[in-house]
Amino acid sequence: MPGGYETDTVTRLETNLDDCPAEQLGAAMEKLLAAGALDVWFTPIQMKKNRPGTLLSVLCAPGDADALADMIFAETTAFGLRREQLVRLKLGRRFETVRTEFGEVTVKIGLKGDVAVQVAPEFESCRAVSERAGVPLRDVYDAARRSFDPGR
Amino acid sequence: MPGGYETDTVTRLETNLDDCPAEQLGAAMEKLLAAGALDVWFTPIQMKKNRPGTLLSVLCAPGDADALADMIFAETTAFGLRREQLVRLKLGRRFETVRTEFGEVTVKIGLKGDVAVQVAPEFESCRAVSERAGVPLRDVYDAARRSFDPGR
Amino acid sequence: MPGGYETDTVTRLETNLDDCPAEQLGAAMEKLLAAGALDVWFTPIQMKKNRPGTLLSVLCAPGDADALADMIFAETTAFGLRREQLVRLKLGRRFETVRTEFGEVTVKIGLKGDVAVQVAPEFESCRAVSERAGVPLRDVYDAARRSFDPGR
Amino acid sequence: MPGGYETDTVTRLETNLDDCPAEQLGAAMEKLLAAGALDVWFTPIQMKKNRPGTLLSVLCAPGDADALADMIFAETTAFGLRREQLVRLKLGRRFETVRTEFGEVTVKIGLKGDVAVQVAPEFESCRAVSERAGVPLRDVYDAARRSFDPGR
Amino acid sequence: MPGGYETDTVTRLETNLDDCPAEQLGAAMEKLLAAGALDVWFTPIQMKKNRPGTLLSVLCAPGDADALADMIFAETTAFGLRREQLVRLKLGRRFETVRTEFGEVTVKIGLKGDVAVQVAPEFESCRAVSERAGVPLRDVYDAARRSFDPGR
Amino acid sequence: MPGGYETDTVTRLETNLDDCPAEQLGAAMEKLLAAGALDVWFTPIQMKKNRPGTLLSVLCAPGDADALADMIFAETTAFGLRREQLVRLKLGRRFETVRTEFGEVTVKIGLKGDVAVQVAPEFESCRAVSERAGVPLRDVYDAARRSFDPGR
Repeated sequence: MPGGYETDTVTRLETNLDDCPAEQLGAAMEKLLAAGALDVWFTPIQMKKNRPGTLLSVLCAPGDADALADMIFAETTAFGLRREQLVRLKLGRRFETVRTEFGEVTVKIGLKGDVAVQVAPEFESCRAVSERAGVPLRDVYDAARRSFDPGR
Repeated sequence: MPGGYETDTVTRLETNLDDCPAEQLGAAMEKLLAAGALDVWFTPIQMKKNRPGTLLSVLCAPGDADALADMIFAETTAFGLRREQLVRLKLGRRFETVRTEFGEVTVKIGLKGDVAVQVAPEFESCRAVSERAGVPLRDVYDAARRSFDPGR
Repeated sequence: MPGGYETDTVTRLETNLDDCPAEQLGAAMEKLLAAGALDVWFTPIQMKKNRPGTLLSVLCAPGDADALADMIFAETTAFGLRREQLVRLKLGRRFETVRTEFGEVTVKIGLKGDVAVQVAPEFESCRAVSERAGVPLRDVYDAARRSFDPGR
Repeated sequence: MPGGYETDTVTRLETNLDDCPAEQLGAAMEKLLAAGALDVWFTPIQMKKNRPGTLLSVLCAPGDADALADMIFAETTAFGLRREQLVRLKLGRRFETVRTEFGEVTVKIGLKGDVAVQVAPEFESCRAVSERAGVPLRDVYDAARRSFDPGR
Repeated sequence: MPGGYETDTVTRLETNLDDCPAEQLGAAMEKLLAAGALDVWFTPIQMKKNRPGTLLSVLCAPGDADALADMIFAETTAFGLRREQLVRLKLGRRFETVRTEFGEVTVKIGLKGDVAVQVAPEFESCRAVSERAGVPLRDVYDAARRSFDPGR
Repeated sequence: MPGGYETDTVTRLETNLDDCPAEQLGAAMEKLLAAGALDVWFTPIQMKKNRPGTLLSVLCAPGDADALADMIFAETTAFGLRREQLVRLKLGRRFETVRTEFGEVTVKIGLKGDVAVQVAPEFESCRAVSERAGVPLRDVYDAARRSFDPGR
């Protein structure tokens, strides 16, 4: 493992779906996230018999895998799931507040050991400021980037 | 493992293809399924040098992996394959026949222990009924869903 | 229009689908082609509310558009369609037979005026030869390409 | 035009994006829909210099096109847009309420003239019932389909 | 048309490809751009007979369409093309140079009339600075954004 | 393992990206390949909050994984990576030169033991010949295929 990263083990659940309506999949994504999944995503895949299927992937803490598997079987048309353990390499995270002309924005900082290697304005914080100030979301992002002094 | 599911181990073979014509890939999918693959699918991927490539994925019983690997090398342009073992979580399966206004349709039931958690009209059964009756496929699906009494 | 090409006008029908199961879409593609569509294809699209939708596109002769529109409404969940006229630029087509070590293969030649600008072994012809001879499809393609003399 | 369908004219705005972060695109989709777009969707495209770009498509009433174009320029990184008029073919729409074991559900019916050619449980209605009753969304859909009598 | 935008007419050429190897498509993209295409992109599509095809789209000045159509027929397996005229809405463009801690970077400004609605560091300029300074490309982008004063 | 194949172990690094501009991803792909990655590819994925994200996958020798992980954190917006070991099955490789009417072309031959199961004209060799001879790339490929005698 490279020095300075945090690591943990996560479970990935996957299933190929060829008979679940997309509007039910959209709702399933939201339920899985609300139930504690670390990440949920769809990949467009092409399945047999000319079917434009969808690969559902769920990343979760190993201890949540059973409950999320049950939810996948309840909320989608899956008859089976694939299950893997993966090693995850992570930056440490620290949050800071920066002052912009539109209001205060939270910035997420990614740390390798003590070194900041990522700086990302937080989406929900930017969205809230954007709505309050009545300015485009991108202007808030740009303002937050301008206001953060990486050299501190 | 969550209680009530069946599990087994399957092999996934994967290869990134950037010089195989799509019409040969379509034929390869059909051959791989005919040769016993449990599932075969394509994922659109973007490869180096601006190439719109295709990821071929084959899921199979571990004992079939050698023969299917040989087939991939014969039927596609692959020079290499990735090979993994995965745990699969499955519902038990039971088939029932339901009577609809268009004819009898087979329905696949997914069981967690004794509890039915999925009900799916069988595609080939619906297609045959649809063709015989001269009605849209979807009408047969809907009729099968209406005719199946989940509360039995 | 560039000299030497043939042109015609075709109709494109399109609809965004977010509640049609993929297995019904696969069957719809086959029915549309059997009913005279010039081409049918699916594009993976991302729709509102986190839905992994599918764009169905059908290309057809203008005179077939009404019947194919009816079929789309019958075989998919569409409540609406978009309809456009497009100009199509085409090569002339001529078919030849070439002799290979596996049997005779039909080759499709694309002509700009009198000049052959494309040569393509015909898929179904190659597939039939491949099955009869028990050799990979790609070997038949390669043999057909080797046997065709572009300089004739 | 096939008999029995309603038609109108809509505008499609499109732009290829290769430098807009996906999280800003997700927010832009929601804003465009809130501002009156009839539909908004993303198509994954592969652009020059190995860029995994996104095609943004917006369908709208012609009278809304100016305001939505302004919004695309404000909320994304677009420097240009393509603009087309399209004919749209639509089913008539009627809404009905059906009683299910979980509560009342709204069903959308698609009409060609007087003939019902589509029946679709309404997503938000099903979601509300699903949440109130604490049952999977799919069970509500299936119950709504069972409860709707297409022969009335 | 909304006030303040520039407009022009462009041609879009499109073709569905199911027998062209991806590595030849990557090279074709580069040749088409070098020959004057305004934009070239690939969309993954799912074609008949289980083929993972590719939609090639080329945007060009109407006067370049003939030569680019010839090139598509020469460099891909196309037997036909679709051809449309589209209206394009564009921001005016102005270029400025900003000074960053890594060197000077060109910034592209998008204008609606006199108002700057977009600011984008130029990719090739950032890449050159990134290589000379030996810093990640993203650091140059961020520095350019910080250095540009939108309020001037 | 099937007889006749070479095997090795490779590392796959993966990360889901929803806030990295595509033009920076294209540059990151090129840097990762230049730094020794065996393969780098993008898969379009659909992430939460309606985000059209990108899955970045990097395949590398296990000993290169640390350096490439550092590069991913530097050149993209990743806050985390997934890391797996995979078995790879490979054909042996031998290169030959064939003479065509356009010049000499390198051909890559894939060997299972002593048996040639793949023959592929080398892309960069074909491209160089194509540019020197001023003929379409595909003509060089076809000529190379015609000139290679598989029965030798």
